[in-house]
Amino acid sequence: MRQTNELFNSEVIAKQNIQALDQVYTANARMLPPGAEMIAGREPIKAFWQQAIAGLGLKSVKLTTVEAEALGDGVVEIGRAELSLAGGNTLTVKYVVQWKQEAGKWKWHTDIGNPNQ
Amino acid sequence: MRQTNELFNSEVIAKQNIQALDQVYTANARMLPPGAEMIAGREPIKAFWQQAIAGLGLKSVKLTTVEAEALGDGVVEIGRAELSLAGGNTLTVKYVVQWKQEAGKWKWHTDIGNPNQ
Repeated sequence: MRQTNELFNSEVIAKQNIQALDQVYTANARMLPPGAEMIAGREPIKAFWQQAIAGLGLKSVKLTTVEAEALGDGVVEIGRAELSLAGGNTLTVKYVVQWKQEAGKWKWHTDIGNPNQ
Repeated sequence: MRQTNELFNSEVIAKQNIQALDQVYTANARMLPPGAEMIAGREPIKAFWQQAIAGLGLKSVKLTTVEAEALGDGVVEIGRAELSLAGGNTLTVKYVVQWKQEAGKWKWHTDIGNPNQ
């Protein structure tokens, strides 16, 4: 799980390697971003992140697990994300991710967050 | 689960019966509301809702399950909430709730949401 989160920052955000989201989200993942409808499936989620990284000027995302609970064949994680934006601004987001294994890799299957301020 | 959601609207929101949240949230629940830090435990969650109902002028909350998945001894639900506010305004929120049984009753153990607009 830590590898997946590190990949999200080092590849997807820092290098804008959107295809690396194949290693982050399950094929059938759901994402529920603030200010928009739910997004179903990895390909639409890739399109969302491509726009969001450019739109917000995202420079880095530091993910920290606050709590994690094994549940059946998955894990429910509560976490905190520190977003660094263009212009030196920061944004603190909390999130819940339901993790699932896909082909032996732990990935985000349900992803929802909201800002702390 | 439907009973719990109906109780939330009919007792907690409509009658402002905050103590009925004993039947909605587990004792050790986590709530992650937009614009604030995570709240841990049912008593602080009660204080949050008491303020939120008054502050938003909440009149009713219609909860609809979009997807639900059994996971271990719990359920992960994706849902939609239609909030009716004072003055005839409405607000559409999507949410993820991790359900757990407590003394034989299905309750919200992790609760996070964000607005669609």
